[in-house]
Amino acid sequence: MSHNSFGHLFRVTTWGESHGPAIGCVVDGCPPGIALSEADIQPFLDRRRPGQSKFTTQRQEPDQVRILSGVFEGRSTGTPISLLIENTDQRSKDYGNIAQSYRPGHADLTYDLKYGIRDYRGGGRSSARETACRVAAGAIARKLLPGVTIRGALVQMGPHAIDRARWDWDAVERNPFWCPDAEAALAWEDYLAGVRKAGSSCGAVIELVADGVPAGLGAPLYGKLDAEIAGALMGINAVKGVEIGDGFASAALSGEANADTMRMAGAQVVFGANHAGGILGGISTSQPIVARFAVKPTSSILTPGASVNALGEEVEVATRGRHDPCVGIRAVPVGEAMLALVLADHLLRHRAQCPGAPSGAILPRDA
Amino acid sequence: MSHNSFGHLFRVTTWGESHGPAIGCVVDGCPPGIALSEADIQPFLDRRRPGQSKFTTQRQEPDQVRILSGVFEGRSTGTPISLLIENTDQRSKDYGNIAQSYRPGHADLTYDLKYGIRDYRGGGRSSARETACRVAAGAIARKLLPGVTIRGALVQMGPHAIDRARWDWDAVERNPFWCPDAEAALAWEDYLAGVRKAGSSCGAVIELVADGVPAGLGAPLYGKLDAEIAGALMGINAVKGVEIGDGFASAALSGEANADTMRMAGAQVVFGANHAGGILGGISTSQPIVARFAVKPTSSILTPGASVNALGEEVEVATRGRHDPCVGIRAVPVGEAMLALVLADHLLRHRAQCPGAPSGAILPRDA
Amino acid sequence: MSHNSFGHLFRVTTWGESHGPAIGCVVDGCPPGIALSEADIQPFLDRRRPGQSKFTTQRQEPDQVRILSGVFEGRSTGTPISLLIENTDQRSKDYGNIAQSYRPGHADLTYDLKYGIRDYRGGGRSSARETACRVAAGAIARKLLPGVTIRGALVQMGPHAIDRARWDWDAVERNPFWCPDAEAALAWEDYLAGVRKAGSSCGAVIELVADGVPAGLGAPLYGKLDAEIAGALMGINAVKGVEIGDGFASAALSGEANADTMRMAGAQVVFGANHAGGILGGISTSQPIVARFAVKPTSSILTPGASVNALGEEVEVATRGRHDPCVGIRAVPVGEAMLALVLADHLLRHRAQCPGAPSGAILPRDA
Amino acid sequence: MSHNSFGHLFRVTTWGESHGPAIGCVVDGCPPGIALSEADIQPFLDRRRPGQSKFTTQRQEPDQVRILSGVFEGRSTGTPISLLIENTDQRSKDYGNIAQSYRPGHADLTYDLKYGIRDYRGGGRSSARETACRVAAGAIARKLLPGVTIRGALVQMGPHAIDRARWDWDAVERNPFWCPDAEAALAWEDYLAGVRKAGSSCGAVIELVADGVPAGLGAPLYGKLDAEIAGALMGINAVKGVEIGDGFASAALSGEANADTMRMAGAQVVFGANHAGGILGGISTSQPIVARFAVKPTSSILTPGASVNALGEEVEVATRGRHDPCVGIRAVPVGEAMLALVLADHLLRHRAQCPGAPSGAILPRDA
Repeated sequence: MSHNSFGHLFRVTTWGESHGPAIGCVVDGCPPGIALSEADIQPFLDRRRPGQSKFTTQRQEPDQVRILSGVFEGRSTGTPISLLIENTDQRSKDYGNIAQSYRPGHADLTYDLKYGIRDYRGGGRSSARETACRVAAGAIARKLLPGVTIRGALVQMGPHAIDRARWDWDAVERNPFWCPDAEAALAWEDYLAGVRKAGSSCGAVIELVADGVPAGLGAPLYGKLDAEIAGALMGINAVKGVEIGDGFASAALSGEANADTMRMAGAQVVFGANHAGGILGGISTSQPIVARFAVKPTSSILTPGASVNALGEEVEVATRGRHDPCVGIRAVPVGEAMLALVLADHLLRHRAQCPGAPSGAILPRDA
Repeated sequence: MSHNSFGHLFRVTTWGESHGPAIGCVVDGCPPGIALSEADIQPFLDRRRPGQSKFTTQRQEPDQVRILSGVFEGRSTGTPISLLIENTDQRSKDYGNIAQSYRPGHADLTYDLKYGIRDYRGGGRSSARETACRVAAGAIARKLLPGVTIRGALVQMGPHAIDRARWDWDAVERNPFWCPDAEAALAWEDYLAGVRKAGSSCGAVIELVADGVPAGLGAPLYGKLDAEIAGALMGINAVKGVEIGDGFASAALSGEANADTMRMAGAQVVFGANHAGGILGGISTSQPIVARFAVKPTSSILTPGASVNALGEEVEVATRGRHDPCVGIRAVPVGEAMLALVLADHLLRHRAQCPGAPSGAILPRDA
Repeated sequence: MSHNSFGHLFRVTTWGESHGPAIGCVVDGCPPGIALSEADIQPFLDRRRPGQSKFTTQRQEPDQVRILSGVFEGRSTGTPISLLIENTDQRSKDYGNIAQSYRPGHADLTYDLKYGIRDYRGGGRSSARETACRVAAGAIARKLLPGVTIRGALVQMGPHAIDRARWDWDAVERNPFWCPDAEAALAWEDYLAGVRKAGSSCGAVIELVADGVPAGLGAPLYGKLDAEIAGALMGINAVKGVEIGDGFASAALSGEANADTMRMAGAQVVFGANHAGGILGGISTSQPIVARFAVKPTSSILTPGASVNALGEEVEVATRGRHDPCVGIRAVPVGEAMLALVLADHLLRHRAQCPGAPSGAILPRDA
Repeated sequence: MSHNSFGHLFRVTTWGESHGPAIGCVVDGCPPGIALSEADIQPFLDRRRPGQSKFTTQRQEPDQVRILSGVFEGRSTGTPISLLIENTDQRSKDYGNIAQSYRPGHADLTYDLKYGIRDYRGGGRSSARETACRVAAGAIARKLLPGVTIRGALVQMGPHAIDRARWDWDAVERNPFWCPDAEAALAWEDYLAGVRKAGSSCGAVIELVADGVPAGLGAPLYGKLDAEIAGALMGINAVKGVEIGDGFASAALSGEANADTMRMAGAQVVFGANHAGGILGGISTSQPIVARFAVKPTSSILTPGASVNALGEEVEVATRGRHDPCVGIRAVPVGEAMLALVLADHLLRHRAQCPGAPSGAILPRDA
């Protein structure tokens, strides 16, 4: 058990605070012989990096990753891979006013209640900065999943959802929101500019899709693939809800409407729909894995809110300094990374127990 | 790591198939000296038991639990507690028709794809019957949480949600649906009778509330209390979505609306709202923990659906025999049990690392 | 983490006390499709069973194992395998005198100090009876290791060691001590008869050899194969020492004497010696794994010893009733089982990370 | 599960190779509020550091540790503590000759067999250099054990054992061997000079004693304190045997001789002896914990040995460059650190399950 590790066989342990000298993680259990260098990881960090548009925090961090171990002559050795990212832009003075006071809706209070001590600089351990480590580790996880494509998109910003009929994966890379609906993205620009100007914040919903996932990943009960995806996504800062496939909407469906019918195309099972989001009984079907998660609006806002401080005094708290009006934007690459981590871990677990299982939904199974 | 265990310090390992001789679980890590007998567990099993109204499967199981170890002279000894429930009503003939064919939307297919073998009788390991073990273990977990009250309620059946203004916990025990809105419960009777008559099924949404949870349970990242609750609830059969506090609705809120303001009442922090559902930064605040989960309609329906069989042939599959038109009903005690298991585990984990932490939101912390 | 589980991917959780209704275990992570029935397990339990000669406790237990789950139509399904052994010969009255008093050198005291409660009947959880579960689980583990032979032998009883020049594996099954030196076995009969008559007890050293273990099992550091074997063997009741290969004797060797030279026989590495006991750097070499463990004399003796009781009073304690003069004898099948459990777990772990690794010491590696 | 982590609640994950840019570890689960700085760790690293006498490798590393996270204003925060030690003296050229060839008795071969790739520079991951991380983590573990004293001593070098009658803890710090027998230390100087001159190597036996350990640490079966100590010590490079208390010698004792009698001194149990080494039934008694481990002679010797290379060719291999003639010397602080890690982890585990247990062997227990 570990409070700062993810995964079982492909296992990531993260460490670091926002304003310490560095953050980093250790990736243990990576198979040997995988071509790997910083150049495989950096592009994913660059996607997550703040300060790239006016819609994310203006903190400027190069987020340059270094591999300190586990790679030799360009290939993984099977030993732990240590990744380190230095913190270079630490303006501690910006955050001095929350050293003693607790932002409403923020982890400030609970850290102090639990530990009796808290590195308040930049949110310390609870800073979104920690997610850089997840993104870096996720980049390695993707190398274990050669035929799998993992993509994320923002499908709702504040109260404004996309029109799914306009979904275009190519659009995602062409706007600062990872929005698959180009029209919605335009509207969001205005909306978010207003939120930012008001010193306010808004939430978001992100959808993740993993294509090409082999059948058979997961397990019937505690190690259910959907349960572990849910835990991984709910473990991202500020996430308050997680869905697989039709999610909450499935509650309103009839059994007939919810069933994904099956037909054969040669020896391959093909499905009439994907209400299940690619997972049945905790095990992947070979259909695309579809997951969504909701990110709440950040509690770092300019409007003073009624709060208390460490002395038990009533205060008004407002966040000065840099912040993200919609932290959900940067959660897109983080969500992708978490999904990659879960899939890589389950791939190793699956082949440990079922080494001869076919990767597709092929019938008869042992033909 | 285990694919059939829950929890870390308070750890439950379940086993058994629907139509084998018995099901059961091992509860490891229970503190010693706790008064415990079958009489503490049986009432929770009786709540989950099928066959109690026309709205649940007519399978008749006494679900009588036996404690085989770990209790001596009426108290837990600190050694593993083995619980066993015999299967007495196994009508295997009812299920013969799905031995080779896969129900659309069911785990039949994925078990076969992963393992190449499957105990098809009554759903085998994927049967809802396994949840009896979770309920039994949850009853023990509750004994570790003396000041905590964990309750669940069905807040939506099919497309029909309750009116939250009529919420009455007392109503929950007075209708066969665990519905907190007595008027809605009446309407649901007719609705579900229709579903059942049509041989169809419907989904549901369950809400869980835990009052009296100490502050400080959880951890900032992987061991986040909300992440583990999400994993635990998504791990229940047929669950497709999980929310904490305002959940997906929080995405549409502004930062101002979402912040739970704080004031002091003596040395105690009091909150102006509970959008967070009792958890901030992965750690409990001492406010009520609020979680919701969505259950899909069961795939066991009378209407034949297009499917395939183990030979790779196209077939039509319908479920004959007993089944639940709304499996979400019986998921209420199961959800309560899972929440109890997570909380008990985190209580032990918390006191291991932070033995001197106060249980309430008291400020100043070390006064 | 679990205090009553063994292994990671092939994972065994045991439960039960000597005088409760039953003992048992859950084997999780077993690959599917393995032919398995009670008949595969029972012979190993019969080897461990007491009451088979005058040299083991006269407790008469049929130790009949039942498989309650995880096997369908004679093959493992990949779901947890629950094993149950009923306790049938529970003469609690024999042990009444130690309900309150602590045997010197026994766990009576420490259970009470830790838990404040103890099932004193027959030693409760600390009874050697629990090892039946390990033996049963070990029998399943062996099925995962088709080319591997795991054998154990008693190489020292009390102060009397065997003559290794007379080692004969066939002799092991022909005497009640699992002694590979037929002459020593004869001498031990008289020696142990004397120990038993005196109401005393003696220790023993057991040697385990696993032939046919693939190269590559294990890991460089915490998951070292030798470290996990050491933990597994030290985890058997009454064990006080563990060695791999030359063990403590290697401390007295020079580097030249200790090195196992290597030569090629075709593409296969052959070794000039096996001082290492088949493990280098925590990883198996493909040479035989050789491990030894020392069992102390049981503290259940007839001679009264100075002790104390739960009230803090000074008392004299003697054990009446049935007991083993040399518990090391029955530790032979238990040690074999523990080694099988470690090897099966590591086989799964190895193929998860290194699925393409050859099983033999073949060079060049990727030819 | 992790192949490079130690412990469960107090959990250490190590990473790094001998000749990479750095080595380090992450310590997770440390309680908050503990005074901690590099100055608490450095002295232990200095004790382990090579190059301090002619009897250890001449590699010169300052082994300067940096704390990168988890400590704020001089106190632990409860979040992961990342420790980093740069590698500064990397003479890769010294080791070039073993890039392809395998030293007999070394992990060179098995790494290649398992992973198909190996960082051969300075032994890579299998280098004794990794033990610096364990020593650093162990220094933190000691802070959790305020009343506990953990000391180690070399009790045998090659075939030369100390005279235990001359045991003097003060002597340990006064010779370069951590030898508690000043006379033996003098003799060893000559002996080891000869070994070194011959380009040979020798083994050693180390004894560890932990005074002041509370009663109740450990658990009856898999989590046995002795089993985890055995695993931890066997997990140190080059260790081939582990003993608790009388260890292998206990096999030759009678039950009467082996029993540690008990008497009361007020409410405190006092023992007539400590054959058990402070552990009964896997649980600490409050007597000193005594453990020993055997270190084999290193395989890095000047005499060429018959071996093979990665191409499957027969070669003669000799180690040039710096090496330790007796690696057991530097294993003393490493063994102490591993014992500290196990005890700190078990202290947290114990108070999670048994928060009210007294720390001493006090009777009656709940008086």
